[in-house]
Amino acid sequence: MLSKNQLKFIQGLKKKKIRQSERLFLAEGVKVVEELLRSSFILHKLYFTEAYTNSLNVADYHLITDKELQLISDFSTPNQVLGIFEIPDVKDSVHEGITVLLDEINDPGNLGTIIRLCDWFGVQQLVCSTNTVDCYNQKVVQASMGSLARVQVTYVDLNFYLKQERRTIYGTFLNGDNVYQTDLESDAVIILGNEANGISDNVAAAVDKKLTIPQFGQQQLTESLNVAMATAIFLSEFKK
Amino acid sequence: MLSKNQLKFIQGLKKKKIRQSERLFLAEGVKVVEELLRSSFILHKLYFTEAYTNSLNVADYHLITDKELQLISDFSTPNQVLGIFEIPDVKDSVHEGITVLLDEINDPGNLGTIIRLCDWFGVQQLVCSTNTVDCYNQKVVQASMGSLARVQVTYVDLNFYLKQERRTIYGTFLNGDNVYQTDLESDAVIILGNEANGISDNVAAAVDKKLTIPQFGQQQLTESLNVAMATAIFLSEFKK
Repeated sequence: MLSKNQLKFIQGLKKKKIRQSERLFLAEGVKVVEELLRSSFILHKLYFTEAYTNSLNVADYHLITDKELQLISDFSTPNQVLGIFEIPDVKDSVHEGITVLLDEINDPGNLGTIIRLCDWFGVQQLVCSTNTVDCYNQKVVQASMGSLARVQVTYVDLNFYLKQERRTIYGTFLNGDNVYQTDLESDAVIILGNEANGISDNVAAAVDKKLTIPQFGQQQLTESLNVAMATAIFLSEFKK
Repeated sequence: MLSKNQLKFIQGLKKKKIRQSERLFLAEGVKVVEELLRSSFILHKLYFTEAYTNSLNVADYHLITDKELQLISDFSTPNQVLGIFEIPDVKDSVHEGITVLLDEINDPGNLGTIIRLCDWFGVQQLVCSTNTVDCYNQKVVQASMGSLARVQVTYVDLNFYLKQERRTIYGTFLNGDNVYQTDLESDAVIILGNEANGISDNVAAAVDKKLTIPQFGQQQLTESLNVAMATAIFLSEFKK
């Protein structure tokens, strides 16, 4: 059974403001929810339908009907289970190794993919401008899956952050040095910019070394690389 | 004005079977449609609303209302224009340079992204198993944008194709040689497999060299890299 109050509470968590005041976020579907249950995230409540056979040891769960799941789900075909998890406290940033900085990434799918890439390449610090999409947005959670538990995502004033930074600051631009022909340091900050406008002028001013991924296709015709693709290639070059 | 027949015809093109018999496909939104208009694709018909100010020289266009665009659009917020383009004839495959082979890629977004990556890295041959998602599927068209005009996508029996192949055949696996430490040939076939199951056994039997992208994060915890991300990193390594 899903009460009116529970329904309202869950709907509220689809808004960033409410997520931040309640310190809770939503995750959906068997695969993502079970990854989060196995991670360091703390479960607040689990809603599931009869079809879900949960082999995990979970305290606070609620059996609901398919119709009720439909009401709270963002999926066109809801998948058995919806979990509410606690947003963990932010730890202090570590200024060593590789940190990825995002300057106004808007697309939740892009942020989710970048979180997964950071996890794959062992980058534990992902620092976002305050106008980057919220990492506890449901679409980001679905795209990043369990990786969100292993990558620390913080939201800060990038200008302020960069002023205190002592590592080399690399930025990704269309007209930088060829990333394949540049010596890349193992302690570094790598900045990726907005999907449409790239890195903002203020942030660009703090960059020590401009990098670019050279294009091998027909010049001027190919769309620029999607920011998540660019992240994959930059992290591959920095970490290998 | 959109007639009942036109509406029915456009809806039909959302099905692969009808696209193949009509040799036509759909594209939506100002950005994608204009990229296709500037490319080698031949326009069949263009539907647009009053808000659209078209600076391009287009013969067969139809002014429709916002409500009519809503009827034919796949977007929750339709964007001014929908085009019907001709599916070009398939040219003979070229067996030199890099060819990317896809073994049962199901997700349209993944295929669209892989087409963009091929375009960026100057790979003009993309060969797909017959059970890979159709490249003229609307979601693939939206994700690949103009790149679809510059990358030749063919659908073949992979086993048959691979038997005739004389270049080195690389396959991407979880347990292959480290891609960063392997000499990669400039004439090569690179196979990427299904999102859930990887490369099928039949196809794997034809592989000369198994490759893998080593994981830098915590072993056993991180989800495998998405196939589009893996493509980005492999093409980057092969082409740089």
